[in-house]
Amino acid sequence: MVAKRINGNKQKIAIYPGTFDPITRGHISLVQRAVHLFDQLIVAVSKNAGKAPLFSWNQRYLMVRKSLEGIPKVEVIKFDGLLAELARSLKARVIIRGLRAVSDFEFEFQMALMNRKMAREVETVFLMPSLSWVYLSSTVVKDIAVNGGDISTLVPPSVVTMMARKARQSKKNR
Amino acid sequence: MVAKRINGNKQKIAIYPGTFDPITRGHISLVQRAVHLFDQLIVAVSKNAGKAPLFSWNQRYLMVRKSLEGIPKVEVIKFDGLLAELARSLKARVIIRGLRAVSDFEFEFQMALMNRKMAREVETVFLMPSLSWVYLSSTVVKDIAVNGGDISTLVPPSVVTMMARKARQSKKNR
Amino acid sequence: MVAKRINGNKQKIAIYPGTFDPITRGHISLVQRAVHLFDQLIVAVSKNAGKAPLFSWNQRYLMVRKSLEGIPKVEVIKFDGLLAELARSLKARVIIRGLRAVSDFEFEFQMALMNRKMAREVETVFLMPSLSWVYLSSTVVKDIAVNGGDISTLVPPSVVTMMARKARQSKKNR
Amino acid sequence: MVAKRINGNKQKIAIYPGTFDPITRGHISLVQRAVHLFDQLIVAVSKNAGKAPLFSWNQRYLMVRKSLEGIPKVEVIKFDGLLAELARSLKARVIIRGLRAVSDFEFEFQMALMNRKMAREVETVFLMPSLSWVYLSSTVVKDIAVNGGDISTLVPPSVVTMMARKARQSKKNR
Amino acid sequence: MVAKRINGNKQKIAIYPGTFDPITRGHISLVQRAVHLFDQLIVAVSKNAGKAPLFSWNQRYLMVRKSLEGIPKVEVIKFDGLLAELARSLKARVIIRGLRAVSDFEFEFQMALMNRKMAREVETVFLMPSLSWVYLSSTVVKDIAVNGGDISTLVPPSVVTMMARKARQSKKNR
Amino acid sequence: MVAKRINGNKQKIAIYPGTFDPITRGHISLVQRAVHLFDQLIVAVSKNAGKAPLFSWNQRYLMVRKSLEGIPKVEVIKFDGLLAELARSLKARVIIRGLRAVSDFEFEFQMALMNRKMAREVETVFLMPSLSWVYLSSTVVKDIAVNGGDISTLVPPSVVTMMARKARQSKKNR
Repeated sequence: MVAKRINGNKQKIAIYPGTFDPITRGHISLVQRAVHLFDQLIVAVSKNAGKAPLFSWNQRYLMVRKSLEGIPKVEVIKFDGLLAELARSLKARVIIRGLRAVSDFEFEFQMALMNRKMAREVETVFLMPSLSWVYLSSTVVKDIAVNGGDISTLVPPSVVTMMARKARQSKKNR
Repeated sequence: MVAKRINGNKQKIAIYPGTFDPITRGHISLVQRAVHLFDQLIVAVSKNAGKAPLFSWNQRYLMVRKSLEGIPKVEVIKFDGLLAELARSLKARVIIRGLRAVSDFEFEFQMALMNRKMAREVETVFLMPSLSWVYLSSTVVKDIAVNGGDISTLVPPSVVTMMARKARQSKKNR
Repeated sequence: MVAKRINGNKQKIAIYPGTFDPITRGHISLVQRAVHLFDQLIVAVSKNAGKAPLFSWNQRYLMVRKSLEGIPKVEVIKFDGLLAELARSLKARVIIRGLRAVSDFEFEFQMALMNRKMAREVETVFLMPSLSWVYLSSTVVKDIAVNGGDISTLVPPSVVTMMARKARQSKKNR
Repeated sequence: MVAKRINGNKQKIAIYPGTFDPITRGHISLVQRAVHLFDQLIVAVSKNAGKAPLFSWNQRYLMVRKSLEGIPKVEVIKFDGLLAELARSLKARVIIRGLRAVSDFEFEFQMALMNRKMAREVETVFLMPSLSWVYLSSTVVKDIAVNGGDISTLVPPSVVTMMARKARQSKKNR
Repeated sequence: MVAKRINGNKQKIAIYPGTFDPITRGHISLVQRAVHLFDQLIVAVSKNAGKAPLFSWNQRYLMVRKSLEGIPKVEVIKFDGLLAELARSLKARVIIRGLRAVSDFEFEFQMALMNRKMAREVETVFLMPSLSWVYLSSTVVKDIAVNGGDISTLVPPSVVTMMARKARQSKKNR
Repeated sequence: MVAKRINGNKQKIAIYPGTFDPITRGHISLVQRAVHLFDQLIVAVSKNAGKAPLFSWNQRYLMVRKSLEGIPKVEVIKFDGLLAELARSLKARVIIRGLRAVSDFEFEFQMALMNRKMAREVETVFLMPSLSWVYLSSTVVKDIAVNGGDISTLVPPSVVTMMARKARQSKKNR
């Protein structure tokens, strides 16, 4: 599914793509930084079937929508396919990515070069999360939750509830 | 399973957690370094169900026990859950981690920050293995064994035997 | 399967091992660089059952053969087992590896040290791909193809055809 | 010297600070990318007395002005002092930095965190130069020029002339 | 100058060596972590004539003493020579080093390996500073101070005063 | 000074350039590896006036010659200018570089890309030193020597003598 939209004017539209499995306070902090820089921010929840996410595509989409509710200029969409083509179809000039660590950097660099090859007019822009969220990733959140730890300072309340349900299920299946 | 123990005095207890799938001479060298620095070392073999280890939790526990037999001040336990909570329940002041490479460093840094957030009084301490074991990891050992190579200089004798059995099995199933 | 060959003279034989799932223009560029440096280049397509490649061992072997057709001094073989032993049995003095990024570097370093331990007389030699292919990997190619993108500038024509077939299959199975 | 300017409206102003000793085609490519993203770009040539630049502050300022001549929405200023304060006084919301390599990344990360501490409302945004300029730095340009190499594809023509003069001088003084 | 001391008992003594030009809140946080882990901590202010420090050896020694005043189990010494020999002469079992970034890591790794070669019985132990000080280094502090910025949250009050004096001097000499 | 030589046949000539300030056992181990791979190895001692080496250009040249004496197929030359042009004038097909760490890697990558741009027919080939010398660099050797440490296992005997003399001088001048 690729969202379609009209952009007749010269607005600067940015896309923030991700799996968001689940969305964390680190992601939210990045969204808040990005909305100050561009006219519109489209958060694109990718299907990512290959990675076998914990939450379904739709669950993740709803989770992200709920978590970003009330932040102005933000729209959440579901996305499956090539990021470069999504950017082009949305007339977005910018892809937003967060950078936390050297390993992020190399992977992101490779992706950005590839996207540039496929859509020359789209620029990848890297932002730094708040220092407090540098250690935070969706993987870490899942690890803590599965082991019965408290994630309430790491994700929004609605995610806490959904993770608790998942953790109970995965415990049962072990 | 989380071990319980009483620590009334001011002993400096350190935990060395890991999957040990299998334990290598690199791990053993780290244990030997750590026992010189702290009063007691608890080697915690984690369940790690998510990673689908080659050896069962119990096999790994027995393997580690056998390999560290005779090193004074060392205790081996099985561990499932949050490392920060294990440290707290054991009144351990220190988590020991080995550092070999830049990629280790980033992951370990993230884990250490998260553990510090969950248990402020526990310090993660990084040690360097002997230079001879810098290239050694459990993954490399499994690779060599599966391909019929000689691992007798990389792991203790009991592990050589167990790996040989596993390699035969995995060969059959291919 | 390990190729056998006689090397009575002092020819400098190099092995370029890989999974090639699929072969990319980056790999081909590396082959072209390597043939200028050594007397013979053996491209060894590894079975790599553990990694669950997209293409079968035989498909990858045929793909590589077709793609390197006409480059002098190159031979393609199938290979399962230890690289160090393959090198020894082929009397190869050199293992060729490409270096693109820091994360490559650390993994390759570890492998090279291990291979040196197993076969002291074999040297691992690192080459740099053309700048244009620095962002290119087999994983990236598969990603683009699965999402319906154009890979015709990234891989040879025969691979384009085979990837298209695979992409259709994997789409059906999702 | 810190430039002063009025920014009553909601224009998005970005600063691109640097020593530019000398300006290279890599810098120019970054400027061209940045002007597409923001409403105004202020290129700030820092004094950087500590680094003992090859060209004087004023030479570098003139060099940058000449090289960016004709690119719309760009202004060049001289700058001495704290970047965070410059950003604040110019009502700039964004600091632009180029990222080429892991070592860049770590230094830039540290700088960005420090600038954020000093001016919370200013965001550091990282851009990637064109792949062709990834290997290019002012240091490399100086190295080649001093050794009598041809830098005409690496820097604009006016810099070629100025470098040639410097190279002759530095040769004399050796 | 190398401090001499008697260590008849089995106390675990650690050395924390550095240039401390100047000491920052990051250094102090590391000292506070280290004193919880070992029985005695010797902070060794190295002469480091090669690096041309901003503050004299004696100024740095006094600065460190003043800043660590009141922390129990800490002793400050001046140190010139080989770290491995200092450790041996003080019967210290441990060298403490802080790790902040990948670039730190590589340099520290090299130093630790070299020190191990020179004094096998001494272990280098790496600690992580508080997240708040990850961006902090003596170099950054000097940069901010020279440019007239506020460093009062980054260093102890006595260092603020001394830096202010230095900054005035260096301004005069420019 | 650039050496001139005739290469009418198809010999594979490699250049190993460096400052060698001083030459270490790590450098020598790399030379020994390289001579097995190529028909001739030219060790090029660069002037490197910019780096202010401890030993003069001529001292370093003589030191390298003495240390490599007796290794067949090796020639030592003095070199000032562009490496790419040296390679071309010597009809060398290969530039040899050692890789020890991630920071090496990035710098070397940049240099190799630049040299490729200047001389397309010359390939940079990276080799790994023996594990025992991974921690070794000319800088580390100088550090230890200046501080009165024993470097006799790190450099050849002739360098020990020359370093001792230098160390005495530099001690006097402090």
